[in-house]
Amino acid sequence: MIKLDFEKLGGLVPAVVQDYQTGEVLMLAFMNEEAWRATLSSGQATYYSRSRQTLWVKGQTSGNLQLVKEIRVDCDDDTVLLKVEQLGGAACHTGYKSCFFKQIENGTVKITAKPVFDPEEVYKK
Amino acid sequence: MIKLDFEKLGGLVPAVVQDYQTGEVLMLAFMNEEAWRATLSSGQATYYSRSRQTLWVKGQTSGNLQLVKEIRVDCDDDTVLLKVEQLGGAACHTGYKSCFFKQIENGTVKITAKPVFDPEEVYKK
Repeated sequence: MIKLDFEKLGGLVPAVVQDYQTGEVLMLAFMNEEAWRATLSSGQATYYSRSRQTLWVKGQTSGNLQLVKEIRVDCDDDTVLLKVEQLGGAACHTGYKSCFFKQIENGTVKITAKPVFDPEEVYKK
Repeated sequence: MIKLDFEKLGGLVPAVVQDYQTGEVLMLAFMNEEAWRATLSSGQATYYSRSRQTLWVKGQTSGNLQLVKEIRVDCDDDTVLLKVEQLGGAACHTGYKSCFFKQIENGTVKITAKPVFDPEEVYKK
C-alpha cells in the first residue's frame, strides 16, 4: 500500500485533475489523508476544502461528480494526478469546463473558452 | 497585470506543468512571486525550491530547461498551469519524462514508463 507524504504541506497533498480522454487539466485541489482514502475506496474524486475545512466530494452539490479512471503519484509521493470522467462536462464552479480558463498574454488575462453551464442555475437553492 | 493569490499557501502558488504538444502532465512545482515574475519575463519555467529555499530555474543543472509556450491561471488566481517544451525530453530528476510515473492499482504502485535518461550521468559532478 503506497504511503503519501502529507507532511510537506501541513497534512495535505495537491491533486492535479485531468480529463481522462482529452488530457485537459481541469482543476487543482488538495487532499488530506481521509480524502485520499475516500477517493481510493469510492472511485469518486474527494478533496479537502481548505476554506470550509471539511471533506468535499467533488460534484456533491452540482451533480458534476468526477469518476476516477486512473490514479498516478509523483516521484516523491507528495502529489497526486487523477484522470477522471467529469460528469456534467464542467469541473469549474464558474461554469467553465476547466478552472484554467484564463490565458495570460503579456501579463493580462484573455478568455477564449465558453462556459458549459450557468452557475446560478446549477447552484440555486 | 494579473495579481496571483500567494496568501493561501504562505507565499506560494502551485504550478502544474504540462507538455504543450501531448498534454502529458510532467510535474508539479511551487512558485513564489519572484519565480512567477521570472517565468513571465524570461519565458523559462522558474520555481521556488521549498527544500533549498531558493529560486530554481528548472533545468539549470541538467540542461533540461522548460520553455514556456502558454500560461494559464485558474478561476481564483491561486494556481498556475504552464504548457512547456521540455528540453532533453524528461522533466523528472529520476530520468522519467514525467514525475507521475507511478500508477496506482488497488493501492499498490505499478511502473510502466521507461526512463529517458540516467540520472547518474546527467547530475554527475
